Formats: sequence, C-alpha cells, structure tokens
Amino acid sequence: MTSNSMQECIDACLECMNACNRCYVASLKEYDLAMLRDCIRLDRECAEICSFAAEALSRGTQFAAEICELCAKACEACAEECGKHEHEHCKQCAEACRRCADICRHMAA
Amino acid sequence: MTSNSMQECIDACLECMNACNRCYVASLKEYDLAMLRDCIRLDRECAEICSFAAEALSRGTQFAAEICELCAKACEACAEECGKHEHEHCKQCAEACRRCADICRHMAA
Amino acid sequence: MTSNSMQECIDACLECMNACNRCYVASLKEYDLAMLRDCIRLDRECAEICSFAAEALSRGTQFAAEICELCAKACEACAEECGKHEHEHCKQCAEACRRCADICRHMAA
Amino acid sequence: MTSNSMQECIDACLECMNACNRCYVASLKEYDLAMLRDCIRLDRECAEICSFAAEALSRGTQFAAEICELCAKACEACAEECGKHEHEHCKQCAEACRRCADICRHMAA
Repeated sequence: MTSNSMQECIDACLECMNACNRCYVASLKEYDLAMLRDCIRLDRECAEICSFAAEALSRGTQFAAEICELCAKACEACAEECGKHEHEHCKQCAEACRRCADICRHMAA
Repeated sequence: MTSNSMQECIDACLECMNACNRCYVASLKEYDLAMLRDCIRLDRECAEICSFAAEALSRGTQFAAEICELCAKACEACAEECGKHEHEHCKQCAEACRRCADICRHMAA
Repeated sequence: MTSNSMQECIDACLECMNACNRCYVASLKEYDLAMLRDCIRLDRECAEICSFAAEALSRGTQFAAEICELCAKACEACAEECGKHEHEHCKQCAEACRRCADICRHMAA
Repeated sequence: MTSNSMQECIDACLECMNACNRCYVASLKEYDLAMLRDCIRLDRECAEICSFAAEALSRGTQFAAEICELCAKACEACAEECGKHEHEHCKQCAEACRRCADICRHMAA
C-alpha cells in the first residue's frame, strides 16, 4: 500500500466523519425525530469510528487492516440506514459513507 | 452477553489504558531509550485503542465484536513487546494487556 | 496535586462517561423524543469530552488544568439539561455530571 | 463565526494532526532518541488534541471556544519544542502547529 492510497483513505474517513456529523446535527433538528433514532445513533457510531480510524492511520498504526475493516462495516451500516430517508443530509451522508466504505475495504484487503 | 460481562470488559480496557499510559510516561524517562522504541509506540497504540474501545462499548456500539477483536490484537502485541523488558512498568503493562486481551477475546466470541 | 487525586479525577470522568452513555442510549428509546433533543446532544458532548479527559489525564498531559476546566463546563451543561427531566437515567446522569464537575473544578484550580 | 472559518479551523487541526503524527513516527526512528523525548511526547499530545478538536468542531460542539483555546496551547507548546530541532520533520511540524495555533486563537476569540 502506497503513501498516496493511505492519505486517500485518511481523507475519505475525515470527509465521511464530516458528513455524518452534519447529518447528526441536522437530524436532531428535524420535526419528525422518531423515525431518525437509528440515523442519529449510526451517525454518531460512524463519525466516532471514522475519526478514530483517521487518527490511527495518520500515526502509522500497525492495525490498519483491522481498523479499516471496522470502519468499512460502520460506514456500510450508516449508509444503509441513511439511504432509507429522503432528507438531503441523509442522502449526502449515505454517499460519503459508501465512498469511505469502498476505500476502507480496499485498504483492508 | 450480560451487562455484567460488558462492564467487566469496559473496566479491563480502562485498566489496560492506565497501565499502558504509565508505561509510556515511565519509558520516555528511561536512560536507555533506544531499546524502548517499540514499547513506546505500542503503549500508545494500545492505550488509544483501549480508550476508544471502552467509550464505544459504554455507548452500546453495535460493533462490539469487531472492536473487542481489534483491542485484543493490540493488547497481545503490546504484551509481547513489554514482556521482553525487565522494567517494572513494562511487566505491569504486559500483565494488564494479557488480562484485557483475554476478556476482549471472550467478548468478541 | 497528588497521584491519588489525579486517579480520583480520572475515575470520576469515566463514571460520568458511563452515566452519559447510559442516558444517551435510554433517551434514544424514549417515546417522547422531541423533548430530549438537547439531552441526547449534551449526553454525547459530555461523554466524548469525559472520555478524552480521562485518557489525557491518564497519559500525564501537561494540559490537565485546561482539560479539566473544559470537562467541568461540559458536565455542568449536561447536568443542567438532564436535571430538567424526570427520567431515572436523566437523574442519574445529572448526579454523575455534578460530581465530575466538582472534582474537575478542584483539579483545574 | 462563519461556516467557512469553522471548516478552515477543522482543516488546520487535521493538517496539524498529520504533521505531528509524521514527526512522531520519524522521531521514534531517529538515532539520537534522547534529545527527542519532549518532541515525541508533545507530538502525541498535539496530535490527540487536534484530532479531538476537529471531531468536536465537526459535530457542532457548543464548547468550540474552550476547545480551540486548548488546541492553540497544545500547538504552541509543540511548535516551541519542535522549533528547537533541525530535523526536517520537526520543522514541518512546527510550521503546521504555528498555523493551527493562529487559526484556533482566532476561532476562540
């Protein structure tokens, strides 16, 4: 794995963290909150895991494969949940999650 | 998995984080620093991963199995490295790491 | 500041993190979610900040005073919000937050 | 404070985290490790605090001022230490730290 692909993976994690956090903040302000319980929960899971992954990859962790595998699973779960909703913040979050999952899966392999 | 065994796992992660951090602080003050490069690096890896695991388990993450598996690997790597050294802080760190690895392996299963 | 009072502060942060996380998980399952928007948000703020503070204090950060000051503010804000609600998880969270705020204020001084 | 300046601050924290982590990894491989004790320690402090700050700002924390103030102090301390050394990784780290400190001070005000 090259240094370029590692930086690309770090950047994807950070973009996904940002998208999940925007979706989290916006979801907590929505009128119909009840249908967004799992969205709020998974936004937080995914944002925390992406942030952890980015910092760990940045410090040259020897557990990059395991951490990228974990991050990919969190992104896929969040993408699936956010993909159910019509809110623009959910759609953008799902897109960032799917992109990050792909890059993390590639890095983990 | 019961709530008791989950709390036991969280506590083991936090004790291990403390032991790794004590070893890290003490190692950076040792006279013969060169032989402790991997010890310092793995103390940090393990402390960060244990802290992340404890917080994630505490917030009821759905990725408990994957995170405990990751934490067990980090603990085992740190225990192996610290087990090579005669410093008291290394011995205590290795012991806390082995205990945390066992409990995390059990939780991941 | 003694090593004992430092460990007491770390433990208070970790107990508060646990209480905030229990309140967060329980709040997301409540029927009347709309009144708990700020509670959910502040539970997450406080849990993340307490977790960060505990890890930083454990690794002997030189920024203990600033971090304890930050943690005290987060605990006070969460205690004030959770103190408005009658849910048992909110009451227990508010109590843990107030205790942690006191100990962090003392450590920051 | 505008959304643009917030994103600029998040990006500065993440660039600084990356620079500190590169300096940390490179420092642990240097022949003369003893003179880099404080550099290694402050690289870790600053990287962890920058990572925490970026995630907190990204999730819209209400404690942005306090967290940016803390981050500025960590960056200044790391810049001062890394500024003492002639290694290229130290110079680049010091530069990223000074830039992040400036932006965080501006955000905190």
